Amino acid sequence: MNKRVLVTGASGFLGRACLPFLWERGFEIHAIASRQENFLNGSEVQWHACNLLDDGQVKALVGKICPDFLLHTAWCPAVPGEFWNDPSNPIWVRASLQLLEAFAGAGGKRAAMVGTCAEYDWSEGICHEANTPLVGRATYGECKLALFLASRAMAKSLDISLAWGRIFFLYGPHEHPRRLVSSITRALLQSQTAPCSSGEQQRDFLHIEDAASALVATLDSSVQGAVNIASGQAVAIKTIAVELAKLIGKPELLALGALPSSAGEPPLLIGDAGRLREEVLWAPRYDLHSGLQATIEWWKDNL
Amino acid sequence: MNKRVLVTGASGFLGRACLPFLWERGFEIHAIASRQENFLNGSEVQWHACNLLDDGQVKALVGKICPDFLLHTAWCPAVPGEFWNDPSNPIWVRASLQLLEAFAGAGGKRAAMVGTCAEYDWSEGICHEANTPLVGRATYGECKLALFLASRAMAKSLDISLAWGRIFFLYGPHEHPRRLVSSITRALLQSQTAPCSSGEQQRDFLHIEDAASALVATLDSSVQGAVNIASGQAVAIKTIAVELAKLIGKPELLALGALPSSAGEPPLLIGDAGRLREEVLWAPRYDLHSGLQATIEWWKDNL
Repeated sequence: MNKRVLVTGASGFLGRACLPFLWERGFEIHAIASRQENFLNGSEVQWHACNLLDDGQVKALVGKICPDFLLHTAWCPAVPGEFWNDPSNPIWVRASLQLLEAFAGAGGKRAAMVGTCAEYDWSEGICHEANTPLVGRATYGECKLALFLASRAMAKSLDISLAWGRIFFLYGPHEHPRRLVSSITRALLQSQTAPCSSGEQQRDFLHIEDAASALVATLDSSVQGAVNIASGQAVAIKTIAVELAKLIGKPELLALGALPSSAGEPPLLIGDAGRLREEVLWAPRYDLHSGLQATIEWWKDNL
Repeated sequence: MNKRVLVTGASGFLGRACLPFLWERGFEIHAIASRQENFLNGSEVQWHACNLLDDGQVKALVGKICPDFLLHTAWCPAVPGEFWNDPSNPIWVRASLQLLEAFAGAGGKRAAMVGTCAEYDWSEGICHEANTPLVGRATYGECKLALFLASRAMAKSLDISLAWGRIFFLYGPHEHPRRLVSSITRALLQSQTAPCSSGEQQRDFLHIEDAASALVATLDSSVQGAVNIASGQAVAIKTIAVELAKLIGKPELLALGALPSSAGEPPLLIGDAGRLREEVLWAPRYDLHSGLQATIEWWKDNL
């Protein structure tokens, strides 16, 4: 099979991080992005203008490119807090199904789409693709779950192979400055106090480059259905905060417990990473220490 | 609010049965159907040609009619057995979301769409809108569940009021001749043996006119979200078969237990009808006896 891939959301936090890994694996990269930049120094990525919410534009572009692969990372703007109930969530369900149908209609064979841990029932703690009930948390989780169910059925109907990467918690370069790791790192690097909750809750974090390489490895495999893009490891929020403060050398500026804990937050939320490791045969490059260190270094140049 | 309604699937088993109830309630009826017939003797229904899978046609028609109400009953062909995994199920998710978006864009205010008991986890027995887990049985149930989740979110985003009628088991005039009640009735009326399973499983049945009047009453209310279109009563399959044989006067031709029971069929599956009765304020016109009798009379003229 040829390796011509169409990437959506290619200027987003996750999408942009996928480009070097697609390049490493020999893909001919065609990208759609809301912001067009030469992330790979020019000619390695062919950028296309396309409003993904406009079915006519999508059909025309997909018909022109005829991609063999589709990596669909685009969704409504990932503004912290706001994306949970962004009114465009359901519009992206409709648009994503149109995109998948257009891809199949143009001869596409293999797709990976981006799901979320918010599809799972969070009371379960450890989320497993095959066993954990799916309920959809907030509008975002409900709409991603709707797209998972419909796109899985559509892939079967239209005879394309589809993987659905369920993303857990991310951090790293280019992350929105108001997210956990970004905000603490930025505050401490600027010698400001970094207020946090007590941070007892445990989560599953991946460095953005690891998440991207896992998603691209999944696309480049024949694994079908849901795959947790997760470390499988639990780490307390406060452990991350303390590690950042230690690495930056400002432990006195970390104010653990200064912010209230969010209501309704489960104590434990991690992804079973068995499928990712044993079927996709993926392994991370970063551990927490090296991942946070790399993030700090990036922010030093991008404050 | 004006009462101009667009009805899809208006020649289908459920959709066609809705037309007289819309008329009773004073709606100006615009209908799309795969087969166009003068179900209401001519001028009371305005029929429109439209391929609902073609977004351009849908937008043009909806923009021309500017309906205040939408009653969306269209879906892939309801061929017994086959609809469960019909490859067009996911295409109808995409098309239904486009229709809802076009409806809102043309100034629509209130919609009712057709869901199914196959959205529920069937191991629960009694299905309640607020409490029973949603899993999606086969491709049909998964795609209807996907549409429920996405359309509920879309209605909220686009500021329209949406009810989702979950249909249980139906019988009555115009039903597909291979369904339970139709097939037994037809065989017995033709003095042929009617083979059945032992029929111990209990289900929730509504006469098609009752299901249609319930769906139209729901549309004409302000109730939002999922509403079971159900009787709330359990009746054993064998009770229906025996009643039909008694009413037709051919009890000796009924062969209970001649067919194997289907694997994986739950012993009990009924819908809690509390919302329908207490919020929509709907009541049925038929009981089992009168509903089956009316069905037999119809088949006598339509064998």
